[in-house]
Amino acid sequence: MAPPTAIDIEGVTDTQAIVLPNPLTINGVSARRTKAGKLVAGTAAFTSSDHFKSQTSGKPNAKRWDRKSVTQTPPSIHADHPHADYLTIESKARQPSSLKGAAQYLRNPGLISLGGGLPCAENFPIEELAIKVPSPPHFSEQETKVSGTVLTAGKYDVAEGRSAYDLSIALNYGLGTGSAQMIRFVTEHTEIVCDPPYADWHCALTVGSTSALDQTYRIFCERGDYVLSEEYTFASAVETALPLGIKFAGVKMDDQGLIAESMDEILSNWNVQERGARKPRVLYTVPSGQNPTGATQSTERRKAIYKVAQKHDIYILEDEPYYFLQMQPYTGPNAAPVPPPENNEAFLKALIPTYLSMDVDGRVMRMDSFSKVIAPGTRVGWITASAQIVERFVRHNECSNQNPSGISQLVLYKMLDESWGHSGYLQWLISLRLEYTRRRDAILAACEKFLPKEIVSWNPPAAGMFLWLKIAHHLHPSYATTPLLDLEEKIFLAAVERGVLISRGSWFTAERDGFVPQDMFFRATFAAATEEKMTEAIERFGKAIRESFGLVDGKVRNGNGA
Amino acid sequence: MAPPTAIDIEGVTDTQAIVLPNPLTINGVSARRTKAGKLVAGTAAFTSSDHFKSQTSGKPNAKRWDRKSVTQTPPSIHADHPHADYLTIESKARQPSSLKGAAQYLRNPGLISLGGGLPCAENFPIEELAIKVPSPPHFSEQETKVSGTVLTAGKYDVAEGRSAYDLSIALNYGLGTGSAQMIRFVTEHTEIVCDPPYADWHCALTVGSTSALDQTYRIFCERGDYVLSEEYTFASAVETALPLGIKFAGVKMDDQGLIAESMDEILSNWNVQERGARKPRVLYTVPSGQNPTGATQSTERRKAIYKVAQKHDIYILEDEPYYFLQMQPYTGPNAAPVPPPENNEAFLKALIPTYLSMDVDGRVMRMDSFSKVIAPGTRVGWITASAQIVERFVRHNECSNQNPSGISQLVLYKMLDESWGHSGYLQWLISLRLEYTRRRDAILAACEKFLPKEIVSWNPPAAGMFLWLKIAHHLHPSYATTPLLDLEEKIFLAAVERGVLISRGSWFTAERDGFVPQDMFFRATFAAATEEKMTEAIERFGKAIRESFGLVDGKVRNGNGA
Repeated sequence: MAPPTAIDIEGVTDTQAIVLPNPLTINGVSARRTKAGKLVAGTAAFTSSDHFKSQTSGKPNAKRWDRKSVTQTPPSIHADHPHADYLTIESKARQPSSLKGAAQYLRNPGLISLGGGLPCAENFPIEELAIKVPSPPHFSEQETKVSGTVLTAGKYDVAEGRSAYDLSIALNYGLGTGSAQMIRFVTEHTEIVCDPPYADWHCALTVGSTSALDQTYRIFCERGDYVLSEEYTFASAVETALPLGIKFAGVKMDDQGLIAESMDEILSNWNVQERGARKPRVLYTVPSGQNPTGATQSTERRKAIYKVAQKHDIYILEDEPYYFLQMQPYTGPNAAPVPPPENNEAFLKALIPTYLSMDVDGRVMRMDSFSKVIAPGTRVGWITASAQIVERFVRHNECSNQNPSGISQLVLYKMLDESWGHSGYLQWLISLRLEYTRRRDAILAACEKFLPKEIVSWNPPAAGMFLWLKIAHHLHPSYATTPLLDLEEKIFLAAVERGVLISRGSWFTAERDGFVPQDMFFRATFAAATEEKMTEAIERFGKAIRESFGLVDGKVRNGNGA
Repeated sequence: MAPPTAIDIEGVTDTQAIVLPNPLTINGVSARRTKAGKLVAGTAAFTSSDHFKSQTSGKPNAKRWDRKSVTQTPPSIHADHPHADYLTIESKARQPSSLKGAAQYLRNPGLISLGGGLPCAENFPIEELAIKVPSPPHFSEQETKVSGTVLTAGKYDVAEGRSAYDLSIALNYGLGTGSAQMIRFVTEHTEIVCDPPYADWHCALTVGSTSALDQTYRIFCERGDYVLSEEYTFASAVETALPLGIKFAGVKMDDQGLIAESMDEILSNWNVQERGARKPRVLYTVPSGQNPTGATQSTERRKAIYKVAQKHDIYILEDEPYYFLQMQPYTGPNAAPVPPPENNEAFLKALIPTYLSMDVDGRVMRMDSFSKVIAPGTRVGWITASAQIVERFVRHNECSNQNPSGISQLVLYKMLDESWGHSGYLQWLISLRLEYTRRRDAILAACEKFLPKEIVSWNPPAAGMFLWLKIAHHLHPSYATTPLLDLEEKIFLAAVERGVLISRGSWFTAERDGFVPQDMFFRATFAAATEEKMTEAIERFGKAIRESFGLVDGKVRNGNGA
């Protein structure tokens, strides 16, 4: 359990730092890399996105989120926050390791380090690692059997000139940023996709966005604070916050998700006395394929929300696990499908712009994850934010999970960087787009066929894994006599009885204390089951609904409403 | 970023639960497994050490650490703690996920789940993973080239009857305990090595002990609390605590590490007013090969410390990354080495008993890690503690890192469980013991040869990676005129000047506020450099010391002291 500090390194080398001109395009990557020269980054080498980004001349630096002149007194719970210090006591107390300062001496030629407790690579009992992966664009399991590529990593590939990353590095300690090899890939990818409009943006690897969220709350939120989010939201985001004493304030939603005007209203009318808490400083939002509603914010909606964030000086946590699960436009049950993107450029253009891409202030932390686009078991994601915030985040990494599994990082590097490259990765994402389009179309076809439309309604999701089914609960025979949550449970159990498990909408309410929902929803995922099983499940759900609502021949028998 | 709850599973199966008699021996494992039948644990299957432990009839359950009758009011900073609630407000607020309750329905035959957002395995682009590992007992890199074993994991090995673990499971979400496959291995290993004397002990995987420590502070320590530890301690343990508002109180040490009487004295005389904090409830200790001092607590010392912990009702965090780096007895520069352990049983007997093995109360959390015995880049370790504490820890996992990388878990499982087995793993640990013995003997030989004994003294370490060099700083020409820390820096820089980096003792002080060390130390590691480089480095350090102290012909020239 030695600290993974640079001093802990035998023969450490910093990642080679070369700043290159021109904003990055997919095709520009290889030219740029050639110009930059070989990536030289040994065991626990220091790295930063600055080593791999375009020159940012002309772009301003991000806004800072501390108020340096103020000493670290606990914030008053009743204080409002114009010009306030946004960083928590905890986050500001994080110092670089005392051993870190000595890292500078590791550059002395001929110096021998007895400084740090890094084990010697010869004692790592994994001599070689190989993975079989698809060869773009032949991504299916069937194709991979025939044409897959086997990628092999040895222990000393770097020393032996075979690769820029190997087991001797990946199996040892790393720094809190993640490896230089993966930071290069995600920095380039982020520049290609988002090209943030301020200069000092950085990436750092995470062990997944839930962990990143826990760490980010601890950067921005004191006990007693509120965070804004969609009124229905990712349950773990709330459950990660609550033990820290952080509550959620839910913003109204429509078919495009969070409503900017509702957010403005909440913030403009925030009553410190009534809420017992200062005005929120953080918005947590899932802009694309939101969990649980499946809603996707349009470009205009994002701009409007960003403007409200500027007005009230709100920091935005852009949680985007489903960003690349944006699907082809839905054309209805019998219409011809929209042809897939012709190439990577067309694919990128078809994506709704990210908050990060419009973040002129540096008020966004974007959370990316490989969980939904490669595999959750990698436990690798990354954040992108201003250097100040990423530095706080990395200080926290050093005193918690340190960095993602080196084995995971090596597997991802071999596949994404060394084999596929950015172009192959985007091709993979296109294939995933089409796969999720098929899955969504299948569940929607089943819904059209099997659900009683007078009771169940939905919007075709444009992204993600979830379909949000609204139930006209006022038509239920027991509507007048049964509280909404009890009725929701009744329908849930009727569905289970019929052999289908579907998530209750109330599980996703942002406000947990005394919140009384007015509407009833169920969440269905189209990510997991096969098309046949999904169809069967929706048919069962339809039957359960009909039975529960007493529908005969498609008509409500004992309804109280319309 | 779907919540990794059991409800998120298509066709989930609980880990098969079979309770077996007889305490576990190395050879008993395979018989027991045969009796238990095939391990059946699919994607994100629920698991618990209870599935894999011996029957514990006759053993008492662990002490509980909450006081259930008390409502969750913030603890007074000045309160003492007899019969107090040891769990923090944060930890007590952790609830099982709202989606979890529905997991029960997944057992209904024929049920189709549209409940959770787990991606489908066919969309994981890694079709096969293979590693080349040593075949016990031929562990060296050279031998592995000739006789190494290639272990292969496919995507659907479980369904196809080839293994109990595969890529379709490892690459998907898992539960907060870690996979059943790895929980089985570490539970058996822990029972073989520690056999805890209470009934309800559990294991849970961690992403490393630093992260486990961060989570454990958040179970037991409120802002303002003190933690006890050795007066010199693992710097990251302190740096993880400080931002949480937790300070360290350093206990005096001797050549066996932490002194029980000093701990008793601190606790008996704890002055709440003076310290501005309630009496400590937690001891953080590294019993074997302590970082930075290299000290190893004897069995008697451990018993004495445990008794003091009982007296003052202290919870013990037993951080043991170096436990299996206990070395052969040191026989001096020219004596014959002690013959290695004859077999696994003799090896286990040669190990000093763990705190966990003497923990009749359930007041110990043992932290194990694969970082020092396999590789840090796995980012896998585990904790063992009472069911109550492990449950709190797992609740936290669910809202932070979730569980270690599935790829790491699969690699470890393939090697440790499926290929080596417990017997092979213990053989590996013996080979590591001999390797570290060689390394320690090499650095000690160099010290004997090159360091001026009138200035530098040390105890031969019995475990770990570190040699703690005490400097007779009162013999330094500038002793009278230079504060100790300045003198330490001067010597440090003189060593750097001579081409050797060695860690300053003051970097490891437990008490950071206004602590004035009375002694001067440097820490050298023998884990990282080759024997030749280590020897060269110690020679350089010797020269730097001689120069700095003005030694001529081995005599102090301008010394102030003895």
